[in-house]
Amino acid sequence: MTLTSEVPAGLRGVVVTTTGLGDVRGDEGFFHYRQYSAIDLARHRSVEDVWFLLHCGALPTPLEAQGFLAEVAAQRHLPAVLADALPVVAAAGGPLLSGLRTALSLLGAAEGFRPVYDLDPAARAADALRVCALTPTVLAALHRLRSGAEPVAPREDLDAAANWLWMLTGREPAPEHVRAIRRYLVSTVDHGFNASTFTARVVASTGADVAAAVVAALGAFSGPLHGGAPDRALAALEEIGTPERAEQWVRDQLAAGGRVMGFGHAVYRTRDPRAVLLRETALELGGDLAELAAAVEDRVVAVLAELKPGRSLHANVEYYAGVVMAQAGLDPSLFTPTFATSRVIGWCANVLEQAQDPRIIRPAARYDGPPAPSPLP
Amino acid sequence: MTLTSEVPAGLRGVVVTTTGLGDVRGDEGFFHYRQYSAIDLARHRSVEDVWFLLHCGALPTPLEAQGFLAEVAAQRHLPAVLADALPVVAAAGGPLLSGLRTALSLLGAAEGFRPVYDLDPAARAADALRVCALTPTVLAALHRLRSGAEPVAPREDLDAAANWLWMLTGREPAPEHVRAIRRYLVSTVDHGFNASTFTARVVASTGADVAAAVVAALGAFSGPLHGGAPDRALAALEEIGTPERAEQWVRDQLAAGGRVMGFGHAVYRTRDPRAVLLRETALELGGDLAELAAAVEDRVVAVLAELKPGRSLHANVEYYAGVVMAQAGLDPSLFTPTFATSRVIGWCANVLEQAQDPRIIRPAARYDGPPAPSPLP
Repeated sequence: MTLTSEVPAGLRGVVVTTTGLGDVRGDEGFFHYRQYSAIDLARHRSVEDVWFLLHCGALPTPLEAQGFLAEVAAQRHLPAVLADALPVVAAAGGPLLSGLRTALSLLGAAEGFRPVYDLDPAARAADALRVCALTPTVLAALHRLRSGAEPVAPREDLDAAANWLWMLTGREPAPEHVRAIRRYLVSTVDHGFNASTFTARVVASTGADVAAAVVAALGAFSGPLHGGAPDRALAALEEIGTPERAEQWVRDQLAAGGRVMGFGHAVYRTRDPRAVLLRETALELGGDLAELAAAVEDRVVAVLAELKPGRSLHANVEYYAGVVMAQAGLDPSLFTPTFATSRVIGWCANVLEQAQDPRIIRPAARYDGPPAPSPLP
Repeated sequence: MTLTSEVPAGLRGVVVTTTGLGDVRGDEGFFHYRQYSAIDLARHRSVEDVWFLLHCGALPTPLEAQGFLAEVAAQRHLPAVLADALPVVAAAGGPLLSGLRTALSLLGAAEGFRPVYDLDPAARAADALRVCALTPTVLAALHRLRSGAEPVAPREDLDAAANWLWMLTGREPAPEHVRAIRRYLVSTVDHGFNASTFTARVVASTGADVAAAVVAALGAFSGPLHGGAPDRALAALEEIGTPERAEQWVRDQLAAGGRVMGFGHAVYRTRDPRAVLLRETALELGGDLAELAAAVEDRVVAVLAELKPGRSLHANVEYYAGVVMAQAGLDPSLFTPTFATSRVIGWCANVLEQAQDPRIIRPAARYDGPPAPSPLP
C-alpha cells in the first residue's frame, strides 16, 4: 500500500466524503441543512420537519409532517428493557450523556439492531428513528431519577420541543419557552463535519448498526476538544454580573492566559448565525439575564477587537444557548443533554447517508519507532 | 478552510498519525509490536509482557513483569456497580461484545474516568489498565449469566490466558490449552491501523476518556466490513468435512459468487504470519480437527491458486484461530469475545499514544447537494 503523507495534521481540510446534508460557510456566517438556511428553518419549522428533511431528503408536505410526528411520538415510550435498566444506569453516576451512551448501547443489543449494510433503507431509517425518538425520553428519565423523582412519560400530542420540557418537569410548558427551545433545537441539529459526526460515519462505514455509531459519537462528543459548553459560558456571564464589569473581566481572563468562554469559533469569521438568532430569541423572552447578556456581548466584542485585532471574535452559539435555556427554566446540568436531543438527529442522518456508500473509512499510520525486528531480550 | 480533495476514497493509505506501537508489512508477511516481531513475542512472552511493552514502552524486566502481573490481577475483580448491572445487561440479549460495550460505558461513568488530556500519564495508564483488566471478567461473567450459571471470580495467581479459561469454566485449565490461547492472544493484541483502532484514536483525539474510546472501538469492531469471523471459518471447515471435498467445495463457493471464509487478507500478499503460528500450534495440540484443517488448507490454497491466479490467497488468522480455540474447548460464540480480550490492550495502547498528541482528528466533507440557500417552501 502506498502511503500518502502530504496531508495536514489531524486530517484538517481533507475531504473524506461528499454529503447532501448541508454545510457551514464560515466566511459568510451561514450554514444550511440540505438546500435550506438552517436559521430560516429554526424560525419557521419544527424539529420534526427538519428531522424529516435530513432523514428523508425533503421537507414534508403537511400530510407527511402529520404522519411523521405521529410516528415519532409513538416511538417515544421507553421499552421495558430500558425502563428496567435506567435506575441502575442512573445510580452508576457520571454525566447524563454517559448514561445515554450506556442506554443506547443496551437498546441496540436488546432490539437486535442489524448492520446498516444488511438492511434495506426503510429498516435502517426505522432504527435511526427509534434512537432519535428515545434519546430525549432516556435523558429526561435519567435526569429525574438522579433527582429522586419518577420519570414522566412522554406525550404523543406534543412536538419534540414541548415534549422535552414536559418530560423534564411534568408541567405544561409555556408556549414562549417551547418556541425558544424549538429554535435552539432546530439550529443545533447538525453543523458540518465535526468530530462526533465524523466518528458516527467511521463506525457506520464498517457496516455497524445505528446504535453503535451513535454510542461512538457520544464518546467523541464527551471530549473537551470537541467543544460545546453552554453551562460554562453562562457561568462566566453570571460571574461578570454587570455590563460595566465586562471589560475588566475580559482583560483579566486574557492576562491570566485564559479563554473567554462563549466567544470565538473555529469556523466562523463573522458572527455565529446561531448566536444572532438566539440573541434575538433571548431578548424576545426578555428579562434581566437577556439584557445583561446582550450588553455584555457588545462590550466583550469591543474589547476583544482591541486586544486581539484581526481575530474577529464574536459571541458563539454557546453564549446565548445557556441564556435561552436558562430563560426556559432549564438547569445548567441540562444544557448539554438538551443539545444532544437535537444533535442525535444529525448524527443519524449522517449514518443513513454513509450507509448508502458501503466503503470503509480507514486511513493509515506511519511507524516511527526503532527498526524492526530487533531480537527479543 | 482550504479543502484537500486529492486523497483516495475512504482515506486509504492517507497517513493520519505516526506511531511507535508497531506496523504490518504485508509484502513480507511480517508484523511487529514496537521493535519486536509479534510472532516471536507470541512464542516466548505472556500477554502481560506484551501489554507492558505496548503501554509502557519496553519489555518488562523480570521484576517489573512480576509487579505488573500482580497489578493487573488485582484489578480483575468486578466492582459492585458492574456486578449489579451485568445481570440486567445479560438479560437484554445481543452479542457478548455489545454487552461489554454497555458495561464499559457504565464503568467509565461510574468510576469518573477523566478526559485523557486532563490527566497525567500515570492516571491515564491506570484507567487503561482498568479497562483491559476488567474486559475478560465482564465477558466471562456475561457468558456464564447467559448460560444460566453464576460468574466465576477471577484468580490472581493466573496470567491472562489461564485466567480467561478459568473464568469461563471454573475448571483448572490444561497447560497446553493455556499455552495455545496465550499464543493466540499475544498474536492478536494489535495489527496496524484497522478501523476500530482508528476509531479509538479519533475519540481519544477529542480528549475523551479511555472508556469512551474503547466503547467506540467496539462499535466499529461490530461492523461486518471490519472483518474477523473465526466462527464462520470453522463452520466452513466443518462443512467441508474431509480434505477430498475441499476442492469441490471451493469451486462451488466461487461459482455461487461467495467468499472462501478464512482465506485471503487485505494486507498480506504472503501467508498471514499468525496463520503460520496457529497452524503449528494446532498441529502440536493434535487431533482430527487440526489434521483436517491443515490438509484442507493445502488443498484450498492449491485450488485458489488455479482459480484466482495472481491473487496469492492464503489462510488468514481466522482460519486457524477457530481451530485452536475449539481445541482449547471454547464454544464458537466465545471466539470473537476471546479476540476482544487481547485487542482491547491494543486499542488502549493507541489511546495512550494519541493522548500524547493533543490534536483533534477531524477531516472535512464536501457538500454536493442543490445550491443553498433555497427559499423555504
